[in-house]
Amino acid sequence: MQSINDALTLIKRGASELLIESELVEKLRSGRPLRVKAGFDPTAPDLHLGHTVLINKLRQFQDLGHQVMFLIGDFTGMIGDPSGKNATRPPLSREQIEANADTYRDQIFKILDPERTEVCFNSQWMEGLGAGGMIRLASLQTVARMLERDDFSKRYAGNQPISIHEFLYPLCQGYDSVAMKADIELGGTDQRFNLLMGRELQKHFGQTPQCVLMMPLLEGLDGVNKMSKSLGNYIGIDEPAGEIFGKVMSISDELMWRYFDLLSLRSVGDVANLRAAADDGRNPRDIKIELAGELVARFHGHAAARAAEADFLARFQKGAMPDEMPELEMPLPPEGIPVANFLKEAGLVGSTSEGMRMISQGAVKLDGERVSDKGMVLTAAVVVVAQVGKRRWARVTLK
Amino acid sequence: MQSINDALTLIKRGASELLIESELVEKLRSGRPLRVKAGFDPTAPDLHLGHTVLINKLRQFQDLGHQVMFLIGDFTGMIGDPSGKNATRPPLSREQIEANADTYRDQIFKILDPERTEVCFNSQWMEGLGAGGMIRLASLQTVARMLERDDFSKRYAGNQPISIHEFLYPLCQGYDSVAMKADIELGGTDQRFNLLMGRELQKHFGQTPQCVLMMPLLEGLDGVNKMSKSLGNYIGIDEPAGEIFGKVMSISDELMWRYFDLLSLRSVGDVANLRAAADDGRNPRDIKIELAGELVARFHGHAAARAAEADFLARFQKGAMPDEMPELEMPLPPEGIPVANFLKEAGLVGSTSEGMRMISQGAVKLDGERVSDKGMVLTAAVVVVAQVGKRRWARVTLK
Repeated sequence: MQSINDALTLIKRGASELLIESELVEKLRSGRPLRVKAGFDPTAPDLHLGHTVLINKLRQFQDLGHQVMFLIGDFTGMIGDPSGKNATRPPLSREQIEANADTYRDQIFKILDPERTEVCFNSQWMEGLGAGGMIRLASLQTVARMLERDDFSKRYAGNQPISIHEFLYPLCQGYDSVAMKADIELGGTDQRFNLLMGRELQKHFGQTPQCVLMMPLLEGLDGVNKMSKSLGNYIGIDEPAGEIFGKVMSISDELMWRYFDLLSLRSVGDVANLRAAADDGRNPRDIKIELAGELVARFHGHAAARAAEADFLARFQKGAMPDEMPELEMPLPPEGIPVANFLKEAGLVGSTSEGMRMISQGAVKLDGERVSDKGMVLTAAVVVVAQVGKRRWARVTLK
Repeated sequence: MQSINDALTLIKRGASELLIESELVEKLRSGRPLRVKAGFDPTAPDLHLGHTVLINKLRQFQDLGHQVMFLIGDFTGMIGDPSGKNATRPPLSREQIEANADTYRDQIFKILDPERTEVCFNSQWMEGLGAGGMIRLASLQTVARMLERDDFSKRYAGNQPISIHEFLYPLCQGYDSVAMKADIELGGTDQRFNLLMGRELQKHFGQTPQCVLMMPLLEGLDGVNKMSKSLGNYIGIDEPAGEIFGKVMSISDELMWRYFDLLSLRSVGDVANLRAAADDGRNPRDIKIELAGELVARFHGHAAARAAEADFLARFQKGAMPDEMPELEMPLPPEGIPVANFLKEAGLVGSTSEGMRMISQGAVKLDGERVSDKGMVLTAAVVVVAQVGKRRWARVTLK
């Protein structure tokens, strides 16, 4: 019983919600390896730290002896966005899916144990369902039930179109759980409705319904929006060690604690000690260096982490980056912003022509990198430490 | 041009609505045989006169040189009612579908020209669509558009459940038009939404949209409800000649004119002459005999029509059925009504025991048939001419 309590404590660490705990206890008691499902989009194989919140949790299940079913949603990926409204979601070919799956494998096995991971593709059972099977699946839910989903109800109330196939996708996701005989499914809190659909369909098909473990969404470098590639506020797990290190160092102190909660694998006690040290006056930057080092080590090894830290200290700390600097936000225009204008708006130069001159003199650095191109335009949302000369500094959130 | 005007007049005769007339004129002008689609339920092969309103219209298209696509909706028939709520719609097997199709052929070729009729099954293209194709199809319409359909909007507003697959069926019907390259689809006025779906999907798939010809729903023998087998107020086209003749004779004079409009193939001028004669005092019963004769002749030939008429006259007219008799309506209790109670409620006997006695004496007839069983119970909605002795008559609508 003690070991089940310990398992439960580990499983619930950092999670937003577990449904239903008593059912999970019963499954854990059975002693058999549970089938732990998590679904991933087949179109975006560049994993970032936001994804690892979930993948870390999968790893914890593996450490407890369970089997991870890493599901790539290739069936819907091969359909793309049939409404044609979303040009960034063209249908994927079988070859692209395979290539993306390989990229997933390269990345996830930095965290997951390949021996306890099964990579699944839902086309395997969805294609066999046929048009008739899809109709039968659609008969299992009502329109009113679907319109309970938050985003649907808002769009319906706001007279924004909802295509009928959007009602089919939660059913497909739920049917995946049936086909996979999932014992538990992990997902973000934004997936609540779809995760519960799996429970309902499993009941209909005579299976014990899966438990559902929801993980919070990780904020991006801006500390506000969900970390996402399209917002540019992300740290990719395949980024070079120095990039990861530098990006972690750019986040606010507040966000650092959030990242400790959701990304660090250090024990709860360890993290509490760090907080106490900060309260006692330890420089938060030094604590941030520990977090940056842990994350770099996870994806690039300890040697790379040590090198990145040394490099960072050489470039920034020894280069006199102040402990505190102005923090400001700036809207990112759709067409981007030329770096000289950016400096002016950040208050680091008096005019764009001064900005141009400072660039020509080699006095401008962004995240420690000297800017040499006067025509450079910032086009992505980013948090960047901007420096003009030795004394003008700002941490700017561009979004 | 004159011939196109004539064709249009014939096509529009008795129809409720034609969409869109100018498009149909253009199609008729092309001179090619048009592909005329009409869909039928695979579960109910007992055709009644209600169905023939549409089938007569198909025949008129054939007479104009066009091709009829008689579509049996076997795809959805083989799914049945997947919600399981409707026990009368179990899934049909391939063998049942084939048997039903043969029964259709036996019946429809009493009206249609087999040379210009293609019997189609939508499983032929729907099964090949696959689960992915069904999702793509579903992406072509919005939830809001579906909820515009009358019955859906009423149910949604009334908190009655709508299963999601019900949204897929209009799309399937519309896709049939795409697969069949239909030039025009015929249907009842209650099919308006689904018929228009065909136009929308054809446009999406780059086809010239079908025209839509809606025929009114035929009232049953009670003159109120839509003719339907489940209401019992129907004349089946496979019923014996005498049955058809007698049932036509039982309808009200008002309904007779409606049937002339929708079921008779006599010319508009002919029918106008009959109306004028009735206004001048001709006995409506004699006009009804002409209608009954025409309908019997269509399904059983002229000899049978003459025999049925002679038999009718022998049994009723010569048996002194009065020109006029009380007409009344009576509710049909769910458990049916014993004939003696029926006679009492109709005012033909003073008490049920008198009713019993009259039955014993052989003095009671229903539609000219002597009632010999005192325990007989009327269980179906029906219009019946009841007679007690020589002088007590009533035409009773039991429903």
